[in-house]
Amino acid sequence: MDQLFVIKIGGNVIDDAGSLRVFLTNFASIKAKKILVHGGGKIATKIGEQLGIQSNYVNGRRITDEATIDLVTMVYGGLVNKKIVAKLQSLHCDAIGLTGADANIIPAVKRPVKDIDYGCVGDVVQEKINVRNLKNLLDNNLTLVIAPLTHDGNGQMLNTNADTIASSLAVALSGSYDVRLIYCFEKNGVLENIDDDDSVITLITKEKYQQLLADKKLFDGILPKIDNAFAAIDSGVKEVLIGHANDLLQNVTLNTKGTLIK
Amino acid sequence: MDQLFVIKIGGNVIDDAGSLRVFLTNFASIKAKKILVHGGGKIATKIGEQLGIQSNYVNGRRITDEATIDLVTMVYGGLVNKKIVAKLQSLHCDAIGLTGADANIIPAVKRPVKDIDYGCVGDVVQEKINVRNLKNLLDNNLTLVIAPLTHDGNGQMLNTNADTIASSLAVALSGSYDVRLIYCFEKNGVLENIDDDDSVITLITKEKYQQLLADKKLFDGILPKIDNAFAAIDSGVKEVLIGHANDLLQNVTLNTKGTLIK
Repeated sequence: MDQLFVIKIGGNVIDDAGSLRVFLTNFASIKAKKILVHGGGKIATKIGEQLGIQSNYVNGRRITDEATIDLVTMVYGGLVNKKIVAKLQSLHCDAIGLTGADANIIPAVKRPVKDIDYGCVGDVVQEKINVRNLKNLLDNNLTLVIAPLTHDGNGQMLNTNADTIASSLAVALSGSYDVRLIYCFEKNGVLENIDDDDSVITLITKEKYQQLLADKKLFDGILPKIDNAFAAIDSGVKEVLIGHANDLLQNVTLNTKGTLIK
Repeated sequence: MDQLFVIKIGGNVIDDAGSLRVFLTNFASIKAKKILVHGGGKIATKIGEQLGIQSNYVNGRRITDEATIDLVTMVYGGLVNKKIVAKLQSLHCDAIGLTGADANIIPAVKRPVKDIDYGCVGDVVQEKINVRNLKNLLDNNLTLVIAPLTHDGNGQMLNTNADTIASSLAVALSGSYDVRLIYCFEKNGVLENIDDDDSVITLITKEKYQQLLADKKLFDGILPKIDNAFAAIDSGVKEVLIGHANDLLQNVTLNTKGTLIK
C-alpha cells in the first residue's frame, strides 16, 4: 500500500506567518501522498469581532450560531484554506482546498441537543466518509488541504474540530493506504514534565500509557490527544506522531523527534 | 465526445435566496457533466463595509487592494462557494467547490499596470489552464463550482471576472467535450428592444450580428458578452446561450428560450 500522511496543524502555526511558511515548505517537500487538515486560528475571532459576531464558549467549546457558521465558512473555508493552497502551489505542491461538503468527503450530523445546544456543530459520520472520492483525488496526485468544516447533507455547513477531522480521515483511509497521522501542536511532544520542553516521551505504547496514567505523569490537556491516537490505531491507522510542527516535518520519515504512539 | 455545460451565474441570482434555490434545483437536474461559475453578489460589498474595506471602482472595475483580495477570497471562495456546494450536495449533485488556485486549474498573471493599477486582479493564462486536472475531476463525476478567483503561481490569490473564467474554461475544455457555454443574466436574452423583455433575438450568427450592429439595434452592455461568445466559438466552443437563469435551465436541452449564438 502507498504511504499517506495525514497532518493536522492548529492555530499556533496558522497565526504566525513565519511558522506557516516554514511548515508549508517542509510539508511540500514530503514525497508521499498527503492530507493537511488546518484549524482556523485567531483570525476568525478577530474578523468576527469586527463584524459584531461574539464568540460564545461553553465548556471550552465554541457555540456556533448562524452568524458564526457563516463566519467560519468564510474564514476557514475561504481565507485560510485558499492562502495555504496558493502558497503550496507556489512550492510546486498540487494542492486542492476542500471542506467536508466538497465532493461530499465528510458527511456529518448536527450535534444533538442535550444539556447544551452547540448550534451548527457537526459530528462526523465515520462510515459515510467518501473514501472513493478521497482516493480519486489522492490517486490523481492531488494534496488535500482540508478546512475544519463538514455538512449535514441537507444544505447546512457545520463546524467540526480539526483533530477529529484528521483522525476520522486517517481511519477511513487506513484500508487503502499505510496511514501516518501527525498532530502538530505547540509542544515538542508528550512531555513527562510539562515545564521541561526537553522531557519528550519518544514512544508511547498502550502499556506505557497505562503506566504513565498510574504514575499521574501526564498533564490533562494531552489525554484527549493520546486517547484519539489509540482510537485511530485500533481502527487501522499505522502510527500517530505528536509534536512541534517544525520538528516533525523537518525529517519526517526518520521520526527522530516528537512522541510516537503505536 | 461527452457533453459539458459551463454555466455562469451572476450576483442577481446569488443575492436572491429564492432565485438561487430555483436555479440550483434546475442545475442539479442536468444529467450531463457540468461546471458552475459564480460571481460574488452584493454580500462582499456589505461585509466589506462592515470590515471598513471600501469599494473602489475605476471605469466600472473594482480595484482589488490587499484587504479586498482577502475579502473576496473569504466571501466568494468561502461563504458563497460552500453554500452553493452544500445546497447542491443536498440535491444529490456531487459538487466540489474550487478557486483557480485549487489543483492549479486556472493560472493567471497579475494585470500589468498601465494607466491604472487594478491591484490583485488576474488575467487568465489560457494556455496554462490545467485541462488534465479538470478532466480528472469531471471524469470522476464531480460537478465543479468555481469562484471568480485565480492565482499567480507565486502564492498570491487574484480576483478575476466570472464571465472570463467561464469562457476560458469553456475554450480550454472544448478539445475534450462538446461544450455549451451558458451566460445567465437578468434579461431574457439579447433583446432587439431593451425596453421589451419579449423582444428576445433567438439566434445570432456572425452575419446577423453584423447586421444588428449596422442597424444599431443592440444596447451597449450586451456587446462584450456577444464578442466573448463569438471568441469562444472561434476557439472551439460549440454554442453559447445567453438569457435568464430560470428560463435557460428549465428545459436546458431544448433551448426554447434565450439567445443562441453559434
